[in-house]
Amino acid sequence: FTTLLGIRLIVNFDSLLQGWVRSIRSQKSNLFLHLNDGSSLQSLQVVASPELNDPSLTFGSAVEVTGVLKKSPHRNQPVELEADQIHVVGECNPVDFPFKTKERHSLEYIRQFPHLRCRTNAFSSLLRVRSEATTAIHSYFKENGFVQIHTPVITSNDCEGAGELFQVEPSSAEVEEGENFFSVPAYLTVSGQLHLEVMSGAFSRVYTFGPTFRAENSQSRRHLAEFHMVEAEVSFTESLEDLTKVMEDMFRSATEHVLAHCAEDVDLFHKHVTPGHRPNVEDILNRSSQKFAFPTHWGCDLQTEHEKYLVKHCGNIPVFVTDYPYDLKPFYARDNKDHPRHSAAAVDLLVPGVGELCGGSLREERLDLLRARLEEVGLEDTYSWYLDLRRFGSVPHGGFGLGFERYLQCILGVDSIKDVIPFPRFSHSCPL
Amino acid sequence: FTTLLGIRLIVNFDSLLQGWVRSIRSQKSNLFLHLNDGSSLQSLQVVASPELNDPSLTFGSAVEVTGVLKKSPHRNQPVELEADQIHVVGECNPVDFPFKTKERHSLEYIRQFPHLRCRTNAFSSLLRVRSEATTAIHSYFKENGFVQIHTPVITSNDCEGAGELFQVEPSSAEVEEGENFFSVPAYLTVSGQLHLEVMSGAFSRVYTFGPTFRAENSQSRRHLAEFHMVEAEVSFTESLEDLTKVMEDMFRSATEHVLAHCAEDVDLFHKHVTPGHRPNVEDILNRSSQKFAFPTHWGCDLQTEHEKYLVKHCGNIPVFVTDYPYDLKPFYARDNKDHPRHSAAAVDLLVPGVGELCGGSLREERLDLLRARLEEVGLEDTYSWYLDLRRFGSVPHGGFGLGFERYLQCILGVDSIKDVIPFPRFSHSCPL
Repeated sequence: FTTLLGIRLIVNFDSLLQGWVRSIRSQKSNLFLHLNDGSSLQSLQVVASPELNDPSLTFGSAVEVTGVLKKSPHRNQPVELEADQIHVVGECNPVDFPFKTKERHSLEYIRQFPHLRCRTNAFSSLLRVRSEATTAIHSYFKENGFVQIHTPVITSNDCEGAGELFQVEPSSAEVEEGENFFSVPAYLTVSGQLHLEVMSGAFSRVYTFGPTFRAENSQSRRHLAEFHMVEAEVSFTESLEDLTKVMEDMFRSATEHVLAHCAEDVDLFHKHVTPGHRPNVEDILNRSSQKFAFPTHWGCDLQTEHEKYLVKHCGNIPVFVTDYPYDLKPFYARDNKDHPRHSAAAVDLLVPGVGELCGGSLREERLDLLRARLEEVGLEDTYSWYLDLRRFGSVPHGGFGLGFERYLQCILGVDSIKDVIPFPRFSHSCPL
Repeated sequence: FTTLLGIRLIVNFDSLLQGWVRSIRSQKSNLFLHLNDGSSLQSLQVVASPELNDPSLTFGSAVEVTGVLKKSPHRNQPVELEADQIHVVGECNPVDFPFKTKERHSLEYIRQFPHLRCRTNAFSSLLRVRSEATTAIHSYFKENGFVQIHTPVITSNDCEGAGELFQVEPSSAEVEEGENFFSVPAYLTVSGQLHLEVMSGAFSRVYTFGPTFRAENSQSRRHLAEFHMVEAEVSFTESLEDLTKVMEDMFRSATEHVLAHCAEDVDLFHKHVTPGHRPNVEDILNRSSQKFAFPTHWGCDLQTEHEKYLVKHCGNIPVFVTDYPYDLKPFYARDNKDHPRHSAAAVDLLVPGVGELCGGSLREERLDLLRARLEEVGLEDTYSWYLDLRRFGSVPHGGFGLGFERYLQCILGVDSIKDVIPFPRFSHSCPL
């Protein structure tokens, strides 16, 4: 019954049921409880004699029920538990508890209670979807021969130009005044790319999935100081289409997995939290089966408004934008050598509602070109290790990063990035 | 052929092979190459006419070979590639390249080249084992109904007493002098436990697998400033044995998976890098099938020497040490109420060669006891959110953390923790 009900049943028909009360209904001849244990959105109905009622049996309280599991007379549940005993393990004062029975609180409201919001249906559904999407992404890479690399969080790289960095030092003065713990200044990573590229010199396909950081003073609905990125590098890759294929396959594979394995949880969002969003997701999957669009644009960098326009212009489906002006891209982007236009082999994936979901590029594998560019900006010594990667058995390669929280926003239709991560961190906010 | 050879073959018998040269043997009538692409320890043999030889075809260079795949006349390889064309994609100067053909470099030696060591057989095997062990651990939890939670790296918790903390602030002065980016001091997490406990109020089983940090001024073979922890919390748990069962099951399940799916890579370690270690691992698995030992000791905290003695005393198998003195354990450990001895329901798992592999406890779920202990140390306001977890639907629960790098040390027999992580960080060392 475990998968059917999503409730752990310890003995088959003579059962101990442990969970949290989601609803209570007291009738003359029967007491009805719905218990949930977090394994699914579904609760199990408990039927008891009214004598088993107790004032401490309230919405949110934790209980253990022993009884007999029976076939249910109701259509929408296969079984119910006839209770012999109900034991309240943990009380929950309904006056103090910020969530109320039968009320559908908004995401904004529950966000005020970061330590309690997982007890709502909406946020527990979100967390199950997030867990399942994580599994799906790992499975995609595993099935496609990628080796997972744990790229480091702490790094001495500081020159990628990916925005503001957080610096780390011990909180108490373990080290001498003015000396760094790591002997050099150390930062929180903004991307695992350069470390993945190290691995691209020995593995044809690698990926990483972990936390990434930006010290941006932003409270936007699309930015966090700590977020999760999925990053992949593919060796022996000579065209952006090899990369966009991986991006598209991963997106499709993960999304289909989540829609199939978390149907109820996704439905809760598509029906009650973000009504009307479901057709957008289906559109993305169906339309993209005719291939995501590949327009080429030219000029200055894209701002959020441009991204929105492009996506809308293409019919509200995901859009790959390729071959950006060379000077707008970081030193590692591969030179297309298409003078006078002069572009870099870079690609962004824009999606409806969210904007930039992925960014990637071919990497400059040619030692002479890479060295010349690093010399221009005076970084050839800092990145001598990176130049070494091109000195010894260099191969054409490329990769991309996907913002995992933005991916969840995209498929669930959630407006704020703060509502798709267990503990959001942004400027002026780091509770717990 | 993909899984058989571990080499991507683009066309079935008329093939393009891409990889790095692991060996070259030039004979009068034939040129033999071994190519590896990182997907397994095995290389594929290429047979070519001596005319296809080229001075740039050296150990470590990257090549593309086109040819025809044939049944091999040799016993130890099912197929080989008869080359029509060999193209050197990326040269590798054998004088400058720090690794030499046919030499078995020590782990200490290759550690000097953090950006290149993945190109050795030993370290690429390590990385495949690490990737597979990660998969195995996720699978174990998935199959046992645990929801994965991404606990945050940045946290405002600073009072767990788990050792020195790293503090984070933006590197450039984005914020006013003396003001914190997050309004409060923020640190790198030392454990996801308290955040997992938040989830234990809604999910029966949760886990996290991510980076963890200690600013210890140590260069020991068992400590890093950044390492990975697997942490789990189980709700409705009333005994340490429920926890030790999960710890033991996870250890067994992951290890059996790795031995089965990474046999060649593990063998490379057990035969060449850490010879003689294989029987230790088998001992651990076989002996522990008769249950890991559960001795109870009493007195002061255990130092490394005590741990070693205990493990040896029990016959060099994993040992659970339970019920530590209450005063030695953090505020969240559950009081056993066994006066006058006064112990806490805590457990450590010690393993041969490594010492402490896991630490866990039942958590104090009783509001009055927890509040009294927090008041004693003046932390009741700081942890009012944590007390809330016990105010609303509190349940008996417990959990543990496993040091992932130490786990790899344990099964591979690797002496230094710096050799089981892609990019080790410790005091005075953070290259790349």
